[in-house]
Amino acid sequence: MEPAPSYKTLPARYYTDPEIFRDEMERFFFDSWVCVGREDTIPNSGDYFLRDIVGESIIVTRDGSSQVRAFYNVCRHRGTRMCSAAEGTFAGRIQCPYHGWTYGLDGRLLGAPHMDEATFRREDYPLHEIAVGLWDGHIFLHSGQKRTPLSEHLGILPAKFAAWRMQDLRLNKRFVYGVKANWKLIILNYNECLHCPVLHPMLNRLTDYLGADNEPPSSTYIGGAMGFRGSTETMSIDGKRRRDYLPGLNEAERSAVYYYAIYPNLLLSLHPDYMMIHTIWPEAVDRTKIICEWYFQPAEDTVDDAIEFWDTTNREDWSIAELSQAGIQSRAYTPGPYSKREALLHAFDQVVTKREPT
Amino acid sequence: MEPAPSYKTLPARYYTDPEIFRDEMERFFFDSWVCVGREDTIPNSGDYFLRDIVGESIIVTRDGSSQVRAFYNVCRHRGTRMCSAAEGTFAGRIQCPYHGWTYGLDGRLLGAPHMDEATFRREDYPLHEIAVGLWDGHIFLHSGQKRTPLSEHLGILPAKFAAWRMQDLRLNKRFVYGVKANWKLIILNYNECLHCPVLHPMLNRLTDYLGADNEPPSSTYIGGAMGFRGSTETMSIDGKRRRDYLPGLNEAERSAVYYYAIYPNLLLSLHPDYMMIHTIWPEAVDRTKIICEWYFQPAEDTVDDAIEFWDTTNREDWSIAELSQAGIQSRAYTPGPYSKREALLHAFDQVVTKREPT
Amino acid sequence: MEPAPSYKTLPARYYTDPEIFRDEMERFFFDSWVCVGREDTIPNSGDYFLRDIVGESIIVTRDGSSQVRAFYNVCRHRGTRMCSAAEGTFAGRIQCPYHGWTYGLDGRLLGAPHMDEATFRREDYPLHEIAVGLWDGHIFLHSGQKRTPLSEHLGILPAKFAAWRMQDLRLNKRFVYGVKANWKLIILNYNECLHCPVLHPMLNRLTDYLGADNEPPSSTYIGGAMGFRGSTETMSIDGKRRRDYLPGLNEAERSAVYYYAIYPNLLLSLHPDYMMIHTIWPEAVDRTKIICEWYFQPAEDTVDDAIEFWDTTNREDWSIAELSQAGIQSRAYTPGPYSKREALLHAFDQVVTKREPT
Repeated sequence: MEPAPSYKTLPARYYTDPEIFRDEMERFFFDSWVCVGREDTIPNSGDYFLRDIVGESIIVTRDGSSQVRAFYNVCRHRGTRMCSAAEGTFAGRIQCPYHGWTYGLDGRLLGAPHMDEATFRREDYPLHEIAVGLWDGHIFLHSGQKRTPLSEHLGILPAKFAAWRMQDLRLNKRFVYGVKANWKLIILNYNECLHCPVLHPMLNRLTDYLGADNEPPSSTYIGGAMGFRGSTETMSIDGKRRRDYLPGLNEAERSAVYYYAIYPNLLLSLHPDYMMIHTIWPEAVDRTKIICEWYFQPAEDTVDDAIEFWDTTNREDWSIAELSQAGIQSRAYTPGPYSKREALLHAFDQVVTKREPT
Repeated sequence: MEPAPSYKTLPARYYTDPEIFRDEMERFFFDSWVCVGREDTIPNSGDYFLRDIVGESIIVTRDGSSQVRAFYNVCRHRGTRMCSAAEGTFAGRIQCPYHGWTYGLDGRLLGAPHMDEATFRREDYPLHEIAVGLWDGHIFLHSGQKRTPLSEHLGILPAKFAAWRMQDLRLNKRFVYGVKANWKLIILNYNECLHCPVLHPMLNRLTDYLGADNEPPSSTYIGGAMGFRGSTETMSIDGKRRRDYLPGLNEAERSAVYYYAIYPNLLLSLHPDYMMIHTIWPEAVDRTKIICEWYFQPAEDTVDDAIEFWDTTNREDWSIAELSQAGIQSRAYTPGPYSKREALLHAFDQVVTKREPT
Repeated sequence: MEPAPSYKTLPARYYTDPEIFRDEMERFFFDSWVCVGREDTIPNSGDYFLRDIVGESIIVTRDGSSQVRAFYNVCRHRGTRMCSAAEGTFAGRIQCPYHGWTYGLDGRLLGAPHMDEATFRREDYPLHEIAVGLWDGHIFLHSGQKRTPLSEHLGILPAKFAAWRMQDLRLNKRFVYGVKANWKLIILNYNECLHCPVLHPMLNRLTDYLGADNEPPSSTYIGGAMGFRGSTETMSIDGKRRRDYLPGLNEAERSAVYYYAIYPNLLLSLHPDYMMIHTIWPEAVDRTKIICEWYFQPAEDTVDDAIEFWDTTNREDWSIAELSQAGIQSRAYTPGPYSKREALLHAFDQVVTKREPT
């Protein structure tokens, strides 16, 4: 038998070079579909939230026809950032607090006081709009020119995860974490459980770290399922399930967690009785913000066991991501060998370096 | 009638590029007249204050002949910053705290312990001096080579504002503000009142935002007068005047505020009964310190109405300047159209881009 | 008599340019012997401390044969920084907290879970080791390729200072200071006492600032002795000696302090009754961390007089170093003249600029 090729981690520059970071931000965050949140947080016309994409403030709102829209938070008059509150509800229009230019929820400029009527045409100055795509309650944005349909980006996932009925779940809790590590280290950490015995003793009691059933990697996502150990029924502090199963799941779907990283920034963790979502927000080559949200069926109110479990696990992961960043920045760092248990990581590295998957 | 040309705001780089910032600092702050303070704050020989010009610490003092002098705060021996306290009084000399080199208030090196008498000549090592210009109590400095007379920089202003007798006024209050915005956004904000109805409800009750009587812009200053509405007599929380008119003002001068931006950093606001001065101190391309001072006739002690009014207005302005900075940094920002009410801003933009005024 | 040449301080860029700083870090801190601490702080096998060399975390430990070893704190698997606590004791091995790779105290990889046995060879992945040199209890590291023996770097010093029996002394106190100044300004400040009358009134009562007996400078160290004034017997708040003389010192060695700067980062101050050590840790071109430690004979417990004296003096020095940094950053700074009392500084400057000593 010929020995398997030995795949190695990426060179340090991918985690330390601000130029590579800027290039990655262009490719993955501005010229790709990015998950920015969930539809159920803006149920009514005029509801909005702001999302910061690598320093760009974006308004995500619902227009008069209940359509989700996204705009750069920049007035067309003198460039003022119009909206400061992280979330809220517009009274039917978006007004700039500087000189009062006023836009409809569809982005059209409605009023521009004292502009010269002879030369000024309001239709020339709508808000800069960003394309929106929706999937089962998830809101995706695409700021770039080379836009492919969201469905192409998602591949088989909509069909695969239809049974979870994600659009019926409701946000219960949101934690925001700051991590001093490159965004890709968060992705790498999420996609292998080889570290679970050492780093996550609590988690490791619930699932078998060698038992991941990974799907062949695609160019837009990676992931797989991990079956529960013994009597475990969900990921919680003791493995007990305190909520109804999500309706529509079959036996197999009830007996595992599905962990999928949808590039660049959505970590989708589907449990038998709830959904956890991480969205990843790079701030600098060595600094990342992570929003973690827990979604349950509307009637559920016992949730702390799941939140506490994952908050503990999250903090263990962020801590090791920071140590990874610190070590990779060393002059002594050289790419190290992946084991076969880390195959998904190599697949992601190849997407990053624009090579064909191997 | 031919439509007026549509003037637009400057490209984003003027507010975000550190290189352009450095160039502007050279042109406007080191190779131009800059207002650093007022004579009445250093009445006696040896009195001094420090002023920080884009990171350069400058000593402004009054020498033995009561002449105002300015020096770089740098010892000629090993470069030590000599003076740390923001203001005070020298006991007839300036001594370096490191090895005791001692200078006169005129900058001459008086003592340099243990230098080799055979080769060392004290006259070779005076403090580096900066040119001083005075106008009606205002102290200006010019650090550059291509120095024009201050009178040329000020143009008609000394004659125009002689009636206010600024040299007779005394400092009552000083506020220092930090603003996360490019210094030019402070100038732009000061020179139009189109934003007053939306941003400054209190101010807008006192003057008519459409009533500015602007002077044709010069290459070194812009400004104009705004007449009071109704029974308003000065800018204060209720428009009431609680102080005597400044002596020497005629009826027209008593019925308006004169707002002048003298490039690069003096915002001179002459009221019927007091003077307000902002000096603008860029710290980085996106960060500016602003010193705001209120000057009254020496006998006046009712001042809070004016200070409170302007402190509120200042904070509204700094807040919108920060939102402007944030928005202009966006990739979505493009130059937007000025209205005719913003003509002075276009004039300033042209000075910045070294074009002829149009 | 021909006048002596007038030596001047270095151009500002040596204290302000990040590129020059990086070059200096390579030459002086990574490709040279650097003092990282003392053997007596890790007496037993498995004891360790971490040292940060310009952002590189280094593990300094004692292996199973009691030999001092140093390793980059970087796991060979995925680059994780393994060890976070500043000091402690390893239980016979160093384990990475991410996936559990385990190394011996000699750096050999002992365990790497789930690596493919067919292709993976543990002997290919030892910790990256750094060369260690020892002198009388001082631990030196050399990270570079062009390694000369430590004895060459130290020249006559081991013979000269043998009488102090430094290896018998024990750490009593450690202070860590942060100084906003270039690392070389700390060296310059240490190597002349011309500043003592102005800056250090307390110190100046104990030694004659003109009485330094300096050795001809070498390319790796500079220094000299300063004799005590009058009845002074050591450096302490009142000049009184509250401890036994170190055994083995002769009359001359008992009547002076020996101040030696061993490049790049060890300031060795040998007193008749104790040893003080500063190690200098550059963090940025304008920021330096300084570790100051006091070592006494094991039986001594009266130490506060010496510590208090030097802590006061240290703070005076750091303060003036910060003012030096601030002044040298000025556009007005130009190299200034050294006196003959500052000859060692010129010698150090020549090492920095790679010129032959003059």
